[in-house]
Amino acid sequence: MNRIITISREFGSGGREVGKRLADALHCAYYDSEIEASIAQNLDLDEGYIARSLESGAFTNIPLHFGRTIASSYLYKQQVDILVEKRKVLREIAAASDCVIVGRAADVILADQHPLKLFVYADLAHKLARCARYEETSSASSPKALEKEIKQVDARRAKYHGMFSPVKWGDRANYHLCINTTGLEIKQLIPHIAGYAGAWFAMNGRQP
Amino acid sequence: MNRIITISREFGSGGREVGKRLADALHCAYYDSEIEASIAQNLDLDEGYIARSLESGAFTNIPLHFGRTIASSYLYKQQVDILVEKRKVLREIAAASDCVIVGRAADVILADQHPLKLFVYADLAHKLARCARYEETSSASSPKALEKEIKQVDARRAKYHGMFSPVKWGDRANYHLCINTTGLEIKQLIPHIAGYAGAWFAMNGRQP
Repeated sequence: MNRIITISREFGSGGREVGKRLADALHCAYYDSEIEASIAQNLDLDEGYIARSLESGAFTNIPLHFGRTIASSYLYKQQVDILVEKRKVLREIAAASDCVIVGRAADVILADQHPLKLFVYADLAHKLARCARYEETSSASSPKALEKEIKQVDARRAKYHGMFSPVKWGDRANYHLCINTTGLEIKQLIPHIAGYAGAWFAMNGRQP
Repeated sequence: MNRIITISREFGSGGREVGKRLADALHCAYYDSEIEASIAQNLDLDEGYIARSLESGAFTNIPLHFGRTIASSYLYKQQVDILVEKRKVLREIAAASDCVIVGRAADVILADQHPLKLFVYADLAHKLARCARYEETSSASSPKALEKEIKQVDARRAKYHGMFSPVKWGDRANYHLCINTTGLEIKQLIPHIAGYAGAWFAMNGRQP
């Protein structure tokens, strides 16, 4: 069984940076938007569309009793296809090699692969500052709008996660290590998180 | 400012072991029941009595409108004295040297000392197994009774913590690192937690 690390994260906490740097430190594959690209290719759909669907909460907005119009029925089928394909892609990724996967409810979708599950979070001021620094992550025009966006993104992630598991997104009981990045430079933490991950896998019977 | 690590923990998760080993690894002082011993000496009270009062929830059982009997009034005064003394002892400890403090709501009582705040937890099966292995930690006669005891101890800790701060005990937002010890040998984690702590303090302006 490969060594799989899943990273769930609050928007703006630097979870993606943790994932990227951790994958570098452990010399393993890193998956983030590559997952949407792969699904798009397999289903012959637009990558941006997939990205907006996954984690955007689009799925959860389809009413249970839809089926009234051909359009909504088609949309529903297409989104189910995306979910099925996503599960397939995640399983292929997990089977291929050691890896770090950011988001995508991989923690619960790959539960039977016993991943090391990390949760990355920070206080609001830190997340606002980080989002402001990396402008491309947000389209918000003011700190107030940004705060609203952060809460909305996290709420959508929680809702999306809830489609796959009754386990609550962000509940520490669901993770092996919860890392508060407030005021910290992620780069400096990585050797220790990587070391922790190595020890964790060794104790769970998976050597590098 | 000294480097202070506070450890909050679920009963049976091994938080005390994390604290002891971490203090060893970092070559710093470790405080646990020493705190009760010091208060007992200063107030000329029995150490066991102090221990039962602190974290036992005894304080929180004193009704707000007591004052009916001399006995309850005396008890109240004595328990307030213990709380005052406890705060004094914790501040002395924090001022004396780098240290690890387990429990005692030190995370919130010493908030102005900016401690590194860890939370140690585990799933119920792991906590039951750990308690059964270290019999002295519990007086429960069956797994069912032990489960009840675990929940009661944690509930008392949460209640006691709530006396000092509106911050919720166990809420990850209040901690810098939350460590799930389920299925792990704590000894193997310590070098990485110690490394993480070192990096955290360095980024917060405190070198060893």
